[in-house]
Order: sequence, then C-alpha cells, then structure tokens
Amino acid sequence: MANPSWSRRHIISLADFQPEEYDTVLQTAASFQEVLSRRTKKVPALQGQVIANLFFEPSTRTRSSFELAAKRLSADTLNFAPGTSSLTKGETILDTAKTYLAMGTDIMVVRHREAGVPLAIANEMDRLQSRVGVFNAGDGQHEHPSQALLDLFTLCMLLNPEKPALSLLAGKKIAIVGDILHSRVARSNIWSLTASGAEVHLAGPPTLLPKLFADFVSSPDSSINGIDRKLFLHWSLQPALEAADFVMTLRLQRERMTQHLLPSLREYHQQFGLTHNRLKWCNPTVKVLHPGPVNRGVEISSELMDDPKFSLISQQVTSGVAVRMALLYLMGSGKLS
Amino acid sequence: MANPSWSRRHIISLADFQPEEYDTVLQTAASFQEVLSRRTKKVPALQGQVIANLFFEPSTRTRSSFELAAKRLSADTLNFAPGTSSLTKGETILDTAKTYLAMGTDIMVVRHREAGVPLAIANEMDRLQSRVGVFNAGDGQHEHPSQALLDLFTLCMLLNPEKPALSLLAGKKIAIVGDILHSRVARSNIWSLTASGAEVHLAGPPTLLPKLFADFVSSPDSSINGIDRKLFLHWSLQPALEAADFVMTLRLQRERMTQHLLPSLREYHQQFGLTHNRLKWCNPTVKVLHPGPVNRGVEISSELMDDPKFSLISQQVTSGVAVRMALLYLMGSGKLS
Amino acid sequence: MANPSWSRRHIISLADFQPEEYDTVLQTAASFQEVLSRRTKKVPALQGQVIANLFFEPSTRTRSSFELAAKRLSADTLNFAPGTSSLTKGETILDTAKTYLAMGTDIMVVRHREAGVPLAIANEMDRLQSRVGVFNAGDGQHEHPSQALLDLFTLCMLLNPEKPALSLLAGKKIAIVGDILHSRVARSNIWSLTASGAEVHLAGPPTLLPKLFADFVSSPDSSINGIDRKLFLHWSLQPALEAADFVMTLRLQRERMTQHLLPSLREYHQQFGLTHNRLKWCNPTVKVLHPGPVNRGVEISSELMDDPKFSLISQQVTSGVAVRMALLYLMGSGKLS
Repeated sequence: MANPSWSRRHIISLADFQPEEYDTVLQTAASFQEVLSRRTKKVPALQGQVIANLFFEPSTRTRSSFELAAKRLSADTLNFAPGTSSLTKGETILDTAKTYLAMGTDIMVVRHREAGVPLAIANEMDRLQSRVGVFNAGDGQHEHPSQALLDLFTLCMLLNPEKPALSLLAGKKIAIVGDILHSRVARSNIWSLTASGAEVHLAGPPTLLPKLFADFVSSPDSSINGIDRKLFLHWSLQPALEAADFVMTLRLQRERMTQHLLPSLREYHQQFGLTHNRLKWCNPTVKVLHPGPVNRGVEISSELMDDPKFSLISQQVTSGVAVRMALLYLMGSGKLS
Repeated sequence: MANPSWSRRHIISLADFQPEEYDTVLQTAASFQEVLSRRTKKVPALQGQVIANLFFEPSTRTRSSFELAAKRLSADTLNFAPGTSSLTKGETILDTAKTYLAMGTDIMVVRHREAGVPLAIANEMDRLQSRVGVFNAGDGQHEHPSQALLDLFTLCMLLNPEKPALSLLAGKKIAIVGDILHSRVARSNIWSLTASGAEVHLAGPPTLLPKLFADFVSSPDSSINGIDRKLFLHWSLQPALEAADFVMTLRLQRERMTQHLLPSLREYHQQFGLTHNRLKWCNPTVKVLHPGPVNRGVEISSELMDDPKFSLISQQVTSGVAVRMALLYLMGSGKLS
Repeated sequence: MANPSWSRRHIISLADFQPEEYDTVLQTAASFQEVLSRRTKKVPALQGQVIANLFFEPSTRTRSSFELAAKRLSADTLNFAPGTSSLTKGETILDTAKTYLAMGTDIMVVRHREAGVPLAIANEMDRLQSRVGVFNAGDGQHEHPSQALLDLFTLCMLLNPEKPALSLLAGKKIAIVGDILHSRVARSNIWSLTASGAEVHLAGPPTLLPKLFADFVSSPDSSINGIDRKLFLHWSLQPALEAADFVMTLRLQRERMTQHLLPSLREYHQQFGLTHNRLKWCNPTVKVLHPGPVNRGVEISSELMDDPKFSLISQQVTSGVAVRMALLYLMGSGKLS
C-alpha cells in the first residue's frame, strides 16, 4: 500500500519538497477528487486510524476541511479545543502532544500561532520512536503546506484535469498580492510555485513585503534546494499583474492597521485590491485565487470574487478536501512501510 | 428511493406545507421511530453524505438532536462553531455557507438569531445551481419547522401509533400559551396545527401576543394557502384551556422582563403558568407539551412537568430524533431524483 | 454477551467494588489493550449505541479518552458543551440528563465540579426505569473511578501482562503524595489499592491531608465494605517513600496558594516534589505515576517525568483508553441482560 515515491512521515514545510513528491500529491488528490464526485464519498483507507486535530489556534474552516478529509478516509477524529484544555492548567504543548500519542493517535494535525510548533512536535514524536505523523496546518507566519498544495492542485487541474502535474506551470507568470511579510500561505506557495518553473511575482506595500527574500530575488534564477527558482518583488500592483496567468491575493489581517503598517483598508484596496478593471493588465485567461476568508472590497472587489469567469475560490475549497485526503492517505500508508 | 409525495429541497417554513406532505413526514418518522426501538439504531440511508450543522446561534439541545438523527442515518456530520469561526474574521454568512458547499456538504442545518438567514442561504444555493438542501433549525422569531413537526408527530402518535396522520387532529382543541409574539415555535405550530383542522387557541399577556394575526383571527375559518384555518386569540388563560385536548406552553425568555414586557416571572406564573389545578378546565384526557428547556415554576409547575399522566415533554424529545431523521432522509433522497 | 461477574449499571464510586469486579475490569481491559495494538483498532461491540459525554466541567484530555474509547467500540458519541447549553438558560442538570435520555442515549459519561451529580443522575435514571448507565468521569472532590482503574491496570500489567489481577499488588507498598484532601483521584485510588492488599501510604502537607481518614488510619487493618484495608498517613515524604514499590503523585491546583493552604509552589516542590534523588529512598524497581496534566517542576521534576526508567505516565494514558473501553463495554452489555 505504501507509495514508492513517498517517504515523508511529517508534512511541515514545502522548502525541501521535490518535483516527484508534488506530482505524487497531485495524482493522489486527483483520484480522491474523483471519489468525491460519487454518491458515496467515502473510502476505507484509514479505517480504525485516529487523526487528532490539535488546533491550538482555532479555525473552523480549516479544521472542517481536515475533519471531512479524515472522515472520508473512514478515520476516527478527535478535536482538541484549546479553550477548555489542559494548556490552561499549565501543561506544555509537547505534553499535550505526548498525551495524544499515548492515547493511540496515528496522525496529529497541528495549528499554532507560533512558528515551529508542528516541527517541535514532530521532532519529539521521532525522538520517542513513535510512528505518528505530524501535519502542519499553519504555524505562525511560517508555512501552511496544505493550502499551497491545494492551490497548486487547483491550478494544475485547470490546466490538465486528466493528468495534473507540477510541470504544467513551467513558464507561467503567477502574481501573489498583499501582505506577503506575515503570510504563511505566501511562504508555502513560493516554495511550490517556484519549484514548478513558474515566474512568481510578489506585490504589496513595502511595509508588508519581506526583507528576507531580498538577496534571493536580487538574483533571480537562484537555486535553492536543488531547484532553480524565479522570484520577483514589486512595490506596486501593475508590474506583477502584467501578462499574469494567475493572481493569488492574500487575506489582509485588520490588525495590520493598528500596527501602523497600513494607513487604511480603503487605501489598501485603492492600491492593491483586485478588480475587473485591473485584471485587464493580465493575460485574458487569468484566474484569481484567495485562501479565504475574504474581506470583500479589501483584497478583492465583491463583483470579482463572485465572478465564476475569473474566481477559483470555490474550487480551492473543494480541492482542499481532496488534497488533504491525499496527504493524510500518503502519511497514513507511509506508516505501514 | 425518491418519495413521490416529496419534492422539497429545503425546509424553511411550514406556511405552504400541504396535508400530504405532513402525512409523508408523519409516516416516515413512524418508521424511523420503530428503528430507534431496535438494539442497533442505525440505517445506512445517508452513508457518505455530509450534514453540516451551521448553528450561528448556539444550541446544544437542538444540535445534539440533529447530530444524532444524522448519525443514525449513517451520514457524516460537521459542526460549525461560531465563536471560533471566520465570521469573527469578517466573512459574510453566505460566504461561510458557500465554503461548506464547496467542501461537499449535502445538507446544511442552519440556526441563526435573525429571521430569514436559512432562506437567504437556500436561495443562494439554488442560484449556484447546487443540490444542497437547507434545513431551518430556528431563525429569529420566524419559524422552527422541525419543532412543530415533532410536536405534530407526538400528538398523532398518541392518537394512533399505527398510522399517525394529520387528519387525526381535526376537531381537536389545542391551546398555545405564553410568549406567542416572539416565538418561532408558536409560528410554525400555528401553520401545522391549523392545517389539521384543529381549533388553535392562543393565550398570553397582551404585550406578548401578535398584532400580526389580528385580521386573521377576527374572521376564523380564514383560508390561507388553500387551507381553512381556525385560530383564536385570548388575553387570559381560562377560555383557551376550557375543554382543550392539548396545551402547549412556550418557553419564556427572561429578557422579556428587562424589555418591560412583563412585570415579573411570579406574576406571569400566577396568570399563565400551567398547574394541575388549571388543567381541570381542560378535557380530562388533556396532555401538556413544552419545547424545552423549561423554566420550572414559570411556564409550568414542577409537579405538572414531571407528571407522566399529563406531560408529553419526554416524548417530544424522543420524537425529535425520529422526525429529524425523517426530514433529513426525505431531503437526502430528494437530492437523488 | 453479558458478563456473569458484572451486574453494575452505573460506575459512580469504587467504595463497594469487590475483588472479582476489579479482576473482570482488568481482564477485559487487557483484551482491549490487545485490540489497540492491531492496525484496525475498532471492534463493533457497541455499534448503534449512543454515548453522551456530559462534561459540565470541561476537560479535553479526559473527554478525548472517553470519546476515543467509545469510537473504538463503534458507538456514536454526543458531546455536551456547557458553555453553549440550556444550563445557561435555566434548565436543571437533571432536566438536561432527561433530555439526553429521551433522545435515546445508552450511556452518559458525567463530569461535574460538584460531588454527587453523577449519582443524582443515576438515581433519576433508575427512578424513571430507564436502562441508561451513568459513568462518573470525575465529580468534585469525590471520586474519579476510571482514573483509579486505569492506574490499577497500569500497575497490574507491569507485574503480569499475561494475567493482570488485583492480587498481584498484595503486600506492595504504594505511596500517594500531594493534595490528598482535594483529590478525587486519590479517593478512588485509596479504595482500589487498599482492596488489593497493598499498603497505601498517604503523604502531604497537613493542610492538604484529610481529617476524614483519621479514625480509619489510626487502626490500620480496618475492614471497610468487607475488605481489610491498610492505610497510613504521613506529614512528610520520606516515611511514605521508604521501600515503596510505586509512588503516585497528584496534580497540585494552583488555587491552593490563593486559598492560603500552601506557602509557594517552590516550597511545595522542596518538601514533596519527586526527584531522582528522593526515589533513592524507594525500592530500586520503583515506578512513578501521575494522573496528568503535570505541573513540571512542582509535583515532579521535569527530568524524572521524562525518564522512561521510572515514569509510567504515558502508560497511564494508554491504559486509559483500554480501561474505558472495558468499562463502557461492561456497562453496555450489562444493559442487554
């Protein structure tokens, strides 16, 4: 049952993902997408296994997607509710994880507002020689791998629903717009999209762009983890959007205002909000993505968000279940090897 | 599998329910009630389908009943927790519903403190040409159809457990007592009970009775939606209870006091509280209903509530699971047609 | 299917548990422990039955353990969330329980911060002639039977994994250290451990030791409920630990400080905290238990807690699932007789 091209126990970051791993995820997700179109949308793949959703940072939307993916693989799910938990009684996060390990959890899906928590739990699970897989469902401003993989799946399925593959994106121009600096979604997407051979163009207000990538982007075609990556930075929207094939806009946290990183939502929308008018800069077949939840009229106009000719937002949510099924399945069958 | 007498995708209001629809619900619920008396109380009817409980207004009791009904139909359930949800991040209610649609939800059970939200979601689902069914689990002061249908089922099963039917209530006198004005339970029950040919008598303090029905009740035997309906209004308890066959008392929200609609709970109980003594006005076989949760000693005396000779409160809760199974089943098999 | 040596409908207290009952639990748990080592960790024993977790006092850890035990027996589970419940609307606890009874619940797992609530619910269920079983998952400072039984199982499995039995502990010295006075874990453990024929030594600050046991312990070898029990009280750690075979340390609630029952956590740790150094007083094969969650560096040093040579804390959590499966199974099959 183990997949020969899959050897990861944990999914923490896409930084070192290899092209064949992306392709395994895309093809496995495509087969689950097909399952989801049937009347009975379940497979017995993970029957009897336990998936614990340890959402230290609450999120109904992402938790529901993971929970549904787990249930459709026939796994049992446990939901950890931080508000009523032992954490308020002084237990450490690693002790909480060890408790779920001792109960017999097979996969832990971990979200936390601090970067590094899923990795710390994964390291502890390995140190204890357990076979538990840890799945990063978003850690601080670090990474959100399943979001980037569902974005990738959405794009590749659009280009070739018969055989989605990473290489389909080679040569495409993809813009990522908004608060890149604080976005784990952007960080994970930069790894996956640049791995495909696409040109990735980041655009946002200077206060919301990372210094981090400065050296990297000063010499495009840098090689990181064995892959040549094309990454560009822009302080305004137009150069990122010109001739773009896909535009991904990011959620803007309202707290950026109180942190004095932005003058106002209205001004942000005037400079970086996506509208039908601005899409005219792009390739005519352009499509728009957003990880949700959307602040309508801020990152994107309400009209554009609801226009099925351009918006892939619903497809992203649908892809989310198939991609998370694929990842849980690959982690779960990896356990058997 | 589709039921020839069932063509509703959504259950929002009982205003336009037809007699044959009531009978389909009653007979389907009776067959599930029988399933619930077996040791293994599950049927595979909705296996692989997903029912999302979108309780924007929290309610453990009603959500548990819906969740249990769904599980006994072998559906998978998702619970939406408003406190930790994207709503607090600025997402609209329709966007939340569209997210659950995109995840692959088959039926959405919606409760909201504003009237009209379930209908708005149902309209959006239809506009998007989805096959999702929307089930109103209580919207503001508008309607609570499953509560009225479980009340109806409780009464009809008492009258003929072999063949519960709407017409069994024709000619019966049924009193509804309390805060009619703010009660979605009363609104839904008025539609179903008047459809049966029963005389429905509303009683409560003038401040808690609807002006809404004034014209309607001034000419009893009005025909609404093709059904002659007998509805009467009383400002005191005795005329409603005299010779009544059934008395339904409504939950009194404590906030009515701070809104200056009521002098005190004690005074309310003295004027409208049900007691053994006051039931002497009724038909000797009278039975009492309450949708719960009960304020003991306010709407009803503790002794009467706990007296199995009169109280149908436990049967109502039991009926709730069977009736919700029936409705989810009818909605779910409707999707197949 | 009913077990001849099991006739309890409810599990409220261990005070009157008989040796053959302990042995039935231990042997049933051992068979489920074996199931948990398989890839598919589920058995269909309670398929179609409904287990409601009524946690009036929230606890993610204990609820997860019960929920997992229920799911592995293939039961359906309902979780009651007090924060969003009818209790805040004025419903009594017994009315809540009667609602879950009427919905068709088979077993209620009850936790409450007041002692006696599970018993009150059990009495009400019996008065109503229901077949519902009530399981005390911790009531105030009274009892926490499943915790004591999982502790017992952990110890007996260590002594003889082939055939765990109560009598294996006869003659052993077991110390219980900490806030005995307020601990439901200690109370339940005292009943089970003294029933085995072990010597049980309680140690803690005078302000945190029960007066309750004063008469009892003044004459060791007292017989209570037909069993001779050996119980000893100490105001310092060393006499309890000397030559001990097992040491159980209890969680210290931080609120004891504000109640002026303790000077400081640091001083508590200096007098009663377990460390590698202090374990030298014990039998060299000594093992340490803690019910969790642990305040590291208070009840026990971080190093000792993480030392697999001494710590049984992970095994306790693992035992918890097997023991709760056994108890739910015994209660569930008892219902059939």
